[in-house]
Amino acid sequence: MLQVGVFGSGGRMGGAACEALAGDPELELVAAVDPNRVGVLAGGLASASDRRAAADADVVVDFTVAEAARDNLVWLAEQKIHAVVGTTGFTDSDLERFGAAFTAAGRACIIAPNFAISAVLMMRFAELAAPYFDTAEVIELHHDAKIDAPSGTARLTVEKMAAASGSWAPDPTVHEMLSGVRGAEGPAGIRVHAVRMRGMVAHHEVILGAEGQTLTIRQDSTDRSSFMPGVLAAVKAAPDRSGLIVGLDALLGF
Amino acid sequence: MLQVGVFGSGGRMGGAACEALAGDPELELVAAVDPNRVGVLAGGLASASDRRAAADADVVVDFTVAEAARDNLVWLAEQKIHAVVGTTGFTDSDLERFGAAFTAAGRACIIAPNFAISAVLMMRFAELAAPYFDTAEVIELHHDAKIDAPSGTARLTVEKMAAASGSWAPDPTVHEMLSGVRGAEGPAGIRVHAVRMRGMVAHHEVILGAEGQTLTIRQDSTDRSSFMPGVLAAVKAAPDRSGLIVGLDALLGF
Amino acid sequence: MLQVGVFGSGGRMGGAACEALAGDPELELVAAVDPNRVGVLAGGLASASDRRAAADADVVVDFTVAEAARDNLVWLAEQKIHAVVGTTGFTDSDLERFGAAFTAAGRACIIAPNFAISAVLMMRFAELAAPYFDTAEVIELHHDAKIDAPSGTARLTVEKMAAASGSWAPDPTVHEMLSGVRGAEGPAGIRVHAVRMRGMVAHHEVILGAEGQTLTIRQDSTDRSSFMPGVLAAVKAAPDRSGLIVGLDALLGF
Amino acid sequence: MLQVGVFGSGGRMGGAACEALAGDPELELVAAVDPNRVGVLAGGLASASDRRAAADADVVVDFTVAEAARDNLVWLAEQKIHAVVGTTGFTDSDLERFGAAFTAAGRACIIAPNFAISAVLMMRFAELAAPYFDTAEVIELHHDAKIDAPSGTARLTVEKMAAASGSWAPDPTVHEMLSGVRGAEGPAGIRVHAVRMRGMVAHHEVILGAEGQTLTIRQDSTDRSSFMPGVLAAVKAAPDRSGLIVGLDALLGF
Repeated sequence: MLQVGVFGSGGRMGGAACEALAGDPELELVAAVDPNRVGVLAGGLASASDRRAAADADVVVDFTVAEAARDNLVWLAEQKIHAVVGTTGFTDSDLERFGAAFTAAGRACIIAPNFAISAVLMMRFAELAAPYFDTAEVIELHHDAKIDAPSGTARLTVEKMAAASGSWAPDPTVHEMLSGVRGAEGPAGIRVHAVRMRGMVAHHEVILGAEGQTLTIRQDSTDRSSFMPGVLAAVKAAPDRSGLIVGLDALLGF
Repeated sequence: MLQVGVFGSGGRMGGAACEALAGDPELELVAAVDPNRVGVLAGGLASASDRRAAADADVVVDFTVAEAARDNLVWLAEQKIHAVVGTTGFTDSDLERFGAAFTAAGRACIIAPNFAISAVLMMRFAELAAPYFDTAEVIELHHDAKIDAPSGTARLTVEKMAAASGSWAPDPTVHEMLSGVRGAEGPAGIRVHAVRMRGMVAHHEVILGAEGQTLTIRQDSTDRSSFMPGVLAAVKAAPDRSGLIVGLDALLGF
Repeated sequence: MLQVGVFGSGGRMGGAACEALAGDPELELVAAVDPNRVGVLAGGLASASDRRAAADADVVVDFTVAEAARDNLVWLAEQKIHAVVGTTGFTDSDLERFGAAFTAAGRACIIAPNFAISAVLMMRFAELAAPYFDTAEVIELHHDAKIDAPSGTARLTVEKMAAASGSWAPDPTVHEMLSGVRGAEGPAGIRVHAVRMRGMVAHHEVILGAEGQTLTIRQDSTDRSSFMPGVLAAVKAAPDRSGLIVGLDALLGF
Repeated sequence: MLQVGVFGSGGRMGGAACEALAGDPELELVAAVDPNRVGVLAGGLASASDRRAAADADVVVDFTVAEAARDNLVWLAEQKIHAVVGTTGFTDSDLERFGAAFTAAGRACIIAPNFAISAVLMMRFAELAAPYFDTAEVIELHHDAKIDAPSGTARLTVEKMAAASGSWAPDPTVHEMLSGVRGAEGPAGIRVHAVRMRGMVAHHEVILGAEGQTLTIRQDSTDRSSFMPGVLAAVKAAPDRSGLIVGLDALLGF
């Protein structure tokens, strides 16, 4: 049985991950690590403040913050432990470093800004559809307590669309009568808009257009519970992979 | 019977207006003016190149360009003729000048960025709903040949919402990781986003949010035919009004 | 200060109502009644099993079930207490009876299938827009544990639209290749569709169409908290009203 | 160069197909057949009333009616000509017969209810997503002159989704308070709703739900021009295929 640890077990996402992992018959939760919040989890497992508690795990799930994860992930690679990472805020050079460390270790580092299957499929479908359309824009909509914009999911989506097609119609705008009204220009000129709205949770919409038609792919996350099936799937897929994998869509069979 | 003239009869909107006016049993089309394109209209009326052909009209519909309309509208006020104006691109000082001229003449100058009843109602409903919500943003979506952004309809909508409520939650964004991603800041901090998409025509969406709920009001214009009922309604309403009226929603009974 | 009681205080909606009423500086919660679940509320008020505990209230909020409410409401009218009712499942003859009783008592009975302001405004806007369009349909979408269809909100919406306009284009369908695919025929032939979807909460969409354009009014409820502002508003409005009032939109100023 | 004929060249879709085929540098339009409307096409090609004019074509595009196409398609198989068919209204036994004839002839018969790439991708994405969700419903929305419901595209979509997953949550509805409100029950219990709305053209929306999340895939066709790229792609793909192929999504590479 796959032995799994969690870094950041005292946080909301990390705690939910502990619960989901402990409830899966194919997985064994062997370590819950959080230097700030030590306690006993639902299943009787005491959480540890030192990451060495996870030294025997096959896979570790990291839901911490970028500052801590930069060091944690390199340590995991050194210990030859696969990583499934929901922490956000990494730079391109962070990713390069993680990629090198895990490739050298022959272990997988799966980093995803969004573990909801609806978001994963949206990203993949947007990428597959991109070559068939002339224009595309992405709108992400979140609750009004979110302090960063755009979401990591929106950024990864436009990156994947830009990689899938470089052939997009130019922006027609000549007179921008309110500054910034066309949103942000992402890779390949694909525009990104961020809406912050009380009463919303987390939503992404990709619109693609061609002569006489449009295609819209939208995902709505209404509850944190939506992320756990994706975390479990990533944990189970990790042992068969190695190196850096960004986005859970890489694990889809199409 | 109300006698009506059209300025800009050789253009697409002006031509459609001539046809709609000629087909209405309550109205008589008495002058079609266009200095650039003179011809004979469907109903047998010859178009004129000089605006004086419309001197006996009760109401004139203007679908020209701002440069021409600035002068035309003042002339109409002097002739004591009501104006219904679909021309766009006026400045605030233009509007002030028109207001003064028509108020002095005891005639109405009805200027609307959008004559589609769906857009008119959207604007009015957004204004009525504004006081009940904490956050609001406007997304306008148009075909990818539109060179200005945002649409006049979007701008008028946020102006009316801002006038209806000044009590909006502040923008939560601290880290804008792609420049401009939060769109343009309109009056009262209401954000406006402009999407340009092949396969689309003209669409506006107002989203309002409060604790645990959102309200979305969306209008889709798929054909220029959608504008004519609004033009006819404005023409018929003009004789009972005077001074400057911006937005057809002022003619609604609620 | 207005004295308010709650019937059904042990239920989820009733409990939330107690909390909201107790927290409002303009209102005093004087009685919480539930024959099945007696206890002490957050504010120290002991709930009662007998409705007579509410005999001195000015207004009583009823979140029970139709069987209990049929008797409760008549009793409230007899006691000359205003009623604000979120209970559903009444027949037309129930409503008639309540109307007669409260009109005779000079007290108000405000019954609403939905207290969310987004739903209240949607209903009212649909009613105001109806005369301007040729076709209309309503789609309601709820979580997949909802056992009745369509929602009371959807039914009340089509009733109000049908009352606002009788001039709708006929259904064009000649070949219905899957039985029932056109949804239910509501009043004035307005079609209603009910979607049941895991991951959703409670959502309503009204679509209206005319030549070349459509107007869509949509409300999304993502949390029960969205109902309480409407309950408080109804409680405060009740003393100025009398007789039966169905739908909170009757309390809007437009 | 591939030689192509068109059956039904006098109709709107057939005429548009002639134009698109004639304009493609990789294709040669060699025959335009229509027994009812004979004439000279834009490119100088005279249309014929007898299908034998197309006897030397490699591929024939059929936009006629089911009654005519039943015989035409068998004749094409006999002549060893590939068929690309936009005609609708076939029964299951028609399809079986076409499959047998074209398989025997070693030629392809590509039948699609919708040649718009947005619809083709929507269908394929719905099929790929189906196994990841617990509930799904399809809403199709068309102009109010469409006499059949639901659209062939909607029917084919639910068939493909049902084939991709048999594991769907049961319909929760116990009280259907308006008859037919839950729409039609398609294969595997997937519900289908048909909206008929003035101002709309042709639109399809697939909604899929799982715990805490939904995925929506929507396509909007606003103009007949959206179909022609799909027709050309099917014509070019036909020579590499044989037997019956239903839905253009079978030609996608994923």
